[in-house]
Amino acid sequence: MHCTNSGNDSVGIPSVDDANPSGRPQRAAPIAESLARLIGQQIADGVYRAGDKLPSLRELAQLHRYAKNTVVVAFEMLVARGLVEPRRGSGFYVLDVDHARPPADEEPGQLSRAMDIVWLMREQLKTQPDAVAVGDGFPPVEWLADMRMDRYHQKVVRTGLGALFRYGSRFGYAPLRESLVRKLGDVGISAAPSQLVLTHGANEAMDLVIRYFLPPGSTVLVDNPGYYPLFGKLKLAGVRMLGVPRLPDGPDLAALEALLQREKPRLFFTQSLAHNPTGSDISPAKAYKVLQLSERYNLMVVENDPLADFKPTSAVRLSALDQLERTIYIGSFSKSFSAALRVGFIACNAALASDLADLKALVHVSSSEYCERMVDVMLREGHYERHLVRLRQRLEAATGHALQVLDALGAEVFARPTSSLYLWSAFPGVDDSLTLAAALMPQKVIMAPGRVFSVDPTAVSPWSRCNVGAVESPRFLATLKAHLSQR
Amino acid sequence: MHCTNSGNDSVGIPSVDDANPSGRPQRAAPIAESLARLIGQQIADGVYRAGDKLPSLRELAQLHRYAKNTVVVAFEMLVARGLVEPRRGSGFYVLDVDHARPPADEEPGQLSRAMDIVWLMREQLKTQPDAVAVGDGFPPVEWLADMRMDRYHQKVVRTGLGALFRYGSRFGYAPLRESLVRKLGDVGISAAPSQLVLTHGANEAMDLVIRYFLPPGSTVLVDNPGYYPLFGKLKLAGVRMLGVPRLPDGPDLAALEALLQREKPRLFFTQSLAHNPTGSDISPAKAYKVLQLSERYNLMVVENDPLADFKPTSAVRLSALDQLERTIYIGSFSKSFSAALRVGFIACNAALASDLADLKALVHVSSSEYCERMVDVMLREGHYERHLVRLRQRLEAATGHALQVLDALGAEVFARPTSSLYLWSAFPGVDDSLTLAAALMPQKVIMAPGRVFSVDPTAVSPWSRCNVGAVESPRFLATLKAHLSQR
Repeated sequence: MHCTNSGNDSVGIPSVDDANPSGRPQRAAPIAESLARLIGQQIADGVYRAGDKLPSLRELAQLHRYAKNTVVVAFEMLVARGLVEPRRGSGFYVLDVDHARPPADEEPGQLSRAMDIVWLMREQLKTQPDAVAVGDGFPPVEWLADMRMDRYHQKVVRTGLGALFRYGSRFGYAPLRESLVRKLGDVGISAAPSQLVLTHGANEAMDLVIRYFLPPGSTVLVDNPGYYPLFGKLKLAGVRMLGVPRLPDGPDLAALEALLQREKPRLFFTQSLAHNPTGSDISPAKAYKVLQLSERYNLMVVENDPLADFKPTSAVRLSALDQLERTIYIGSFSKSFSAALRVGFIACNAALASDLADLKALVHVSSSEYCERMVDVMLREGHYERHLVRLRQRLEAATGHALQVLDALGAEVFARPTSSLYLWSAFPGVDDSLTLAAALMPQKVIMAPGRVFSVDPTAVSPWSRCNVGAVESPRFLATLKAHLSQR
Repeated sequence: MHCTNSGNDSVGIPSVDDANPSGRPQRAAPIAESLARLIGQQIADGVYRAGDKLPSLRELAQLHRYAKNTVVVAFEMLVARGLVEPRRGSGFYVLDVDHARPPADEEPGQLSRAMDIVWLMREQLKTQPDAVAVGDGFPPVEWLADMRMDRYHQKVVRTGLGALFRYGSRFGYAPLRESLVRKLGDVGISAAPSQLVLTHGANEAMDLVIRYFLPPGSTVLVDNPGYYPLFGKLKLAGVRMLGVPRLPDGPDLAALEALLQREKPRLFFTQSLAHNPTGSDISPAKAYKVLQLSERYNLMVVENDPLADFKPTSAVRLSALDQLERTIYIGSFSKSFSAALRVGFIACNAALASDLADLKALVHVSSSEYCERMVDVMLREGHYERHLVRLRQRLEAATGHALQVLDALGAEVFARPTSSLYLWSAFPGVDDSLTLAAALMPQKVIMAPGRVFSVDPTAVSPWSRCNVGAVESPRFLATLKAHLSQR
């Protein structure tokens, strides 16, 4: 184990407030983030230039009543972003200003900003043609090519597209909801059409659930590590997120129960299957225990299942055991069909579905019936089922191959399912996967470092999320091998 | 990236920096906002309590190299949010901390308070085939029939639909943004593609603006009467709405100025043209005055223009006078093309557009490129322009006819534009249009009573919104005549 640099990226965890005159707990992290952003902005604006000294830790803490630790965390964030450097015994100084400029719109940004969820969202929306996107959240496009929408367009037209001028139903296109009833039946979830609300993708589904259940300041449980766009939405809503550690066979039950006892959260957002980022699946025994706990502590479990169709239908889901009593199931076609359609759905009890449909109407009037018809044609004509057979075969082969590659690199793999879009991997000698990602970036190997998926984005993590479709690329093995051998 | 935080942001006043030691232009507003947010957070956390003095303007400016003006703006924002108060010659002091706490609303959030509006939204989504939908917000479907999407589908396929698997750009489909640049140019608004964010309809656009600018408890101005789905969204966000009375030639300027003076709101949502529900257009003189006031009181005006294409391009818009400096323009294709597509857009300054695109990515990942391509094909192929020529002719004829019908009924008509989808009408002897609506309902004449559009839904109103497309129906005249003669 050796560190290449002087630990500039290791940002301290906000803990005890040594200089908080109010004596009340201070949320150090958001304040530190805001302070770091503020100074970062001033650097970008040229108010501070290369070589300038920042105000001292003591001055800032005194003037603002910040906890000293808060200022330290803010400065460490700026260091991690490559904007300033500490000089021993003298303070913090601004580095070359060009680093501070925000990336122009669609140019690749700086990996050092990976802690910023929005930045990562932007990166996910880009595709560099010659990069090996190991950190990509999306399956290789070739895997989806048999679902080319143009081939089936004529059939969509025949569904009555010509007369489609008005808003759709608040629940969404009724025939698609019927198709989804059958589809959910295949994985053991019984739901009536009145229990289904179509949404503008799984992300709108999560947003609606958050807006419905969680007032600002409320508390919610999430998988840790977990789905970072969810974290972004929770932060936006001013909700307090508490992480339930994810183990290879599901949530850490002892930690879950302790949090339920102490914090009495209303919701737990989790991915039972094909967990993002770890690729792990919940065991049947754990699924049962999670549901027992949810009953004992009056918890609703929001089961997000965007990669459902990458798995055999027999895989155990919380919602299949519980039948949507204490579970809210969220599905999507973004990763198995096309993300350009923006079609997802919520399955839950009928009263809640009606409320969520109202909330959706209030916010967006309706979802896109145009897109919903396209999905429905695909489901009804059987194309989608045939596509899934191929997709699952492909995924299983890629997973097997990726495991071989990772083993050859001496990586530790967190969970080893027979098929998974992601493998959560720690490479030998790498303590902070963010530095690894920074080192590989110039060679256009794009990693997704663990702290991106962490509830506490300042926590150092040795893990990286590896997309099995990209790990197949020989360049990944060659580049990483060369890098690891240099160390 | 402030939008990952709590959505408390507002954009302000790029102003003169009187004390910027770097001599370079400093973006005062974002810095001021960040600073205001930071201090607001500390107040919420109890670091500053009621009666505490904030650091002095001079101290903050010196230590941070802020322009003094920046600190002043930040303090003014805190004052406007009811968090601090200035004391003459002494500085700024924290007000009673409870003001700082978000409203303590329990579980179902604010959905229940927005529910009356939800009911109306539901009604709007229904279409009873044999009803005369006088209250309908939508143009008669026949008026849109020449835009049948099935006819042009093949061209959409040719844009490369087959390869459409991934998420789109966070701003939305680039060719459509270029088409919109030209389209906005036609109505006198100059905007670069980087100033445009495509959305899932005008309603998502409003929702994004609300989430970006308006923390719970903040104050906003709206047209009264006005667009009720906007009111629903504002209630959901816990925002305090204050109505600016709408007159036949635009907002009541005296009332507007009084509210600006007293309440210091950050935003004013208004429809300059084809106002919903009154059908009135702003006069050029009033448009100019509104902009003068917006400058004097540091107000941003959100100009919602969903019926833009029903009007001649020469009509005066606030955004065309102001060129998106203090205006945010929201457009849509729902009413002039198809609401089933869910395509709308925001045009604003580039920095704000980038932030809103990030917020959109955070909430929804991206909008639907599939739908955006459909709209772009329509715009590029010239179908839409030809359609608008017919649509405007049809609307003008229907407006003329509807005015005759309303005159024949002895109705008072609030504004009498040569063409308008809506006419705001008071019928003789009717003091409360809600009772009129209830009386006509069994005869399947569906009215939209005035109080639906009122900031105070309990306020009795004699007015009804009449859709000129439905007023054409002979059954409307017959039914209403019979009803009025019974009284």
